[in-house]
Amino acid sequence: METYDEKFDFRDKRNLSLVTDFYELTMSQCYFNAPDANKIVTFDLFYRRNPDNGGFAIFAGLEQIIGFIQNLHFEDEDIAYLKSLNKFSDEFLDYLRHFIFTGDVYAVPEGTPVFPNEPLVRVKAKIIEAQLLETAFLLAINHQTLIATKANRIVRAAKGRIVMEFGARRAHNFDAANYGARAAYIGGVDATATTYAGEKFNIPVAGTMAHSFIQSFDSEYEAFKAYALTYPDSCTVLLDTYDTLNSGVKNAIRVAKEVLEPMGHRLKGVRIDSGDIAYLSKKIRKQLDEAGLEDCQIVASNSFDEYIIKSLIEQGAQIDSFGVGENMIVSKSSPVFGGVYKMSSVIKDNQMIPKIKLSENVEKMTNPGFKDLYRIYDKENHKALADLMTIHGHPISENEDLTICHPDNVWKKKTLKRGTFVIRDLYEPIFVNGRLVYKVPDLNEIRRYSQQELSHLWDEYFRFEYPQVYKVDLTEELLKMKLDLIEEMKH
Amino acid sequence: METYDEKFDFRDKRNLSLVTDFYELTMSQCYFNAPDANKIVTFDLFYRRNPDNGGFAIFAGLEQIIGFIQNLHFEDEDIAYLKSLNKFSDEFLDYLRHFIFTGDVYAVPEGTPVFPNEPLVRVKAKIIEAQLLETAFLLAINHQTLIATKANRIVRAAKGRIVMEFGARRAHNFDAANYGARAAYIGGVDATATTYAGEKFNIPVAGTMAHSFIQSFDSEYEAFKAYALTYPDSCTVLLDTYDTLNSGVKNAIRVAKEVLEPMGHRLKGVRIDSGDIAYLSKKIRKQLDEAGLEDCQIVASNSFDEYIIKSLIEQGAQIDSFGVGENMIVSKSSPVFGGVYKMSSVIKDNQMIPKIKLSENVEKMTNPGFKDLYRIYDKENHKALADLMTIHGHPISENEDLTICHPDNVWKKKTLKRGTFVIRDLYEPIFVNGRLVYKVPDLNEIRRYSQQELSHLWDEYFRFEYPQVYKVDLTEELLKMKLDLIEEMKH
Repeated sequence: METYDEKFDFRDKRNLSLVTDFYELTMSQCYFNAPDANKIVTFDLFYRRNPDNGGFAIFAGLEQIIGFIQNLHFEDEDIAYLKSLNKFSDEFLDYLRHFIFTGDVYAVPEGTPVFPNEPLVRVKAKIIEAQLLETAFLLAINHQTLIATKANRIVRAAKGRIVMEFGARRAHNFDAANYGARAAYIGGVDATATTYAGEKFNIPVAGTMAHSFIQSFDSEYEAFKAYALTYPDSCTVLLDTYDTLNSGVKNAIRVAKEVLEPMGHRLKGVRIDSGDIAYLSKKIRKQLDEAGLEDCQIVASNSFDEYIIKSLIEQGAQIDSFGVGENMIVSKSSPVFGGVYKMSSVIKDNQMIPKIKLSENVEKMTNPGFKDLYRIYDKENHKALADLMTIHGHPISENEDLTICHPDNVWKKKTLKRGTFVIRDLYEPIFVNGRLVYKVPDLNEIRRYSQQELSHLWDEYFRFEYPQVYKVDLTEELLKMKLDLIEEMKH
Repeated sequence: METYDEKFDFRDKRNLSLVTDFYELTMSQCYFNAPDANKIVTFDLFYRRNPDNGGFAIFAGLEQIIGFIQNLHFEDEDIAYLKSLNKFSDEFLDYLRHFIFTGDVYAVPEGTPVFPNEPLVRVKAKIIEAQLLETAFLLAINHQTLIATKANRIVRAAKGRIVMEFGARRAHNFDAANYGARAAYIGGVDATATTYAGEKFNIPVAGTMAHSFIQSFDSEYEAFKAYALTYPDSCTVLLDTYDTLNSGVKNAIRVAKEVLEPMGHRLKGVRIDSGDIAYLSKKIRKQLDEAGLEDCQIVASNSFDEYIIKSLIEQGAQIDSFGVGENMIVSKSSPVFGGVYKMSSVIKDNQMIPKIKLSENVEKMTNPGFKDLYRIYDKENHKALADLMTIHGHPISENEDLTICHPDNVWKKKTLKRGTFVIRDLYEPIFVNGRLVYKVPDLNEIRRYSQQELSHLWDEYFRFEYPQVYKVDLTEELLKMKLDLIEEMKH
């Protein structure tokens, strides 16, 4: 099997191995002390609810966890720190000093629209190795999936107009700005203002001027003129520092006529950042058109989210391009993606012993066992019908009828007739025996794949209000395993 | 003046200089092309509203922006990337290649309780230098101040009980976990689960076991026993994997009696993570006490925030220690701290020309001019009376009556009688002429200072509901400058 260990360009060279909940280390030492320290276990990473009560999420963050695993090691200073806590034996610290990940990781590709309760990442590894991945896996995937999902909602609301990510200053620190921009691009934004993300992830960058730029000149006209002289072929000016309609747009037209047109250039755009955007955009459009600047674009930014953008478009606002800040980069209305990482089985003497987490809240009960994950499409129209978890090693076939069962409500099941559906294995092998076997796709590939995969979803999953609930089901066999296990645990 | 450039240990060695909104660079090239490229300007970093409608915020993030400035430079790969965009001249790129910060930064110390509309950081620098700080300054301070403020609310709700930060997995990526833990510690938490933050910032770390730990053993008792044998003097067990009252607490007591006590140790604690925490904690306390385990602590974690903790305590819940996750590390209920960075003056021929940003929304109008910031305390009881902005270089005195004026409502003013108040300059010099002149305090010092400074606030500012509004005022002279400027701009 071809491996890619040497070929993957680590974009993040920090040693982040200690970004782990302390209990991962205290548990690990217990495992280390136990007679079966090397027992193999499986974990599933899944989430329970879509952000903003949406119909799906956009999976993102895989590349970052690949980098984390590739770079997972404990340096002398880490060992010295852990030793200073007087909790860890020299033998265990020595184990950590030589730690390398030797397990398997399978995952759905980045950009995939995903649904609650399906395992997005599946780990099979020695118990300590599996445990030491938890915190980093969750925080990277929770963050990027959250932002990709939110960005996708906002992009959908804009109905084909340009959307730019402008949120760095409100992001939760540097990584949130950079990886948030990456995730937003997967989710469909056209550009980011975060230059670093442009450099590292090859995302188009955008940006023009701030109010301070205008203020630093003796007049608004002087400021516009200076900008136009430096960027004659990409000049977008900010209108609302003093008075949008009575000063901003008039100076913009003057610069277009007196500075740019004599140089053979057109005014590319104007930006508004405050006030009643719907009203102002129409007034501005009219003034621009009357001045013969029909090709001048109107960019707007002002605490937008998917609902405000939808409303602006319904009001007939004349906006070509939206800059979106805090509501996207923090996913302000729904700022937590609740991914969890739960043990699904222990492998003992080559036997898979399924594990379940019971809960009084039925939603919080896990789906046990070492599992595979498939997406079933309608053979005729290629729309996704359901995602299906199966017991690993028990394949399903397009040539037989397929019964899919609701994970909790045993009376909810459905049989798909053979020949009417197409099965896709949603998992890609990422690491096998600790070796990277996945060719990490280019970010533009991920973004295109995401848009393509979204086209296989029925419109009903895209509604902001009460979207249809997509089926994430179990095979009859897996459901029986789950029910038997619950029964057994209750005794 | 002593400088600390060589002495400050950069904790973050990444080159983050391009984590800047692209417009900072496009504007900078315009400034560069202008005849007065080196003109000096001043900027204020301030915010407009307290998170969660609280009475104040806890300023944090200064150390991180010091590191950013110290490390601010453009490497060959950055220059190459910018060149590839075909927007920047070779002359400007050459300027960036040799860029160093040569300006002045003054700031309030980390840990200070701060209030809306007062400048927390004041920059005086050549215009390009001042502009290139904006994005990083805002994102670091917005993030850390947000989390320190939220943590402080949660700690206050716990009324002296232990509070631990457990949120890494829900943080917005790695930096948010690490710097969030740092900020939470400034805000008053006692420990973090994020090991990296423990290592880098010398914060106590805490953590015991996950449900997966219990699941990986053949029985709950075996799991507790393994943990007790490894950590006999700090054994805290998790009770709710199967059945808190009928299994968890009984196995905990058994391990205390059969494993720990024969070794001469006591069971340190038990943790509950689900169910009705108030009810369960009382039942558990009773069972533990009846078994002679009165010294065994009860730790609880389960989507807590300040309101739930307050309610649990009111219900008489028997909890010694709270673990708090997503509601703290993301400040879920109020996830954006809206700090802004606004130009306050241009210095021309040694004359300070005040600048103001007008807005139809009076709250969004800025306080113009190069300013100083003072805190005024009552001389008798040492309670803070108001914060006061003054025109820089126009000192105020404790030996004269002092009139303080509301920044917007001109009829709101108050005169403090000389001899009744004490003045404290809130600014520390951080960088002077580009040299670091601030001795960065130890994190524990910052935390102690914060608690001490909070003791100078009246109780009325600590309410969660409708806290008293603290006065952030102007001198008569500064108010006149502002009003004159508004008048002038309106013409």
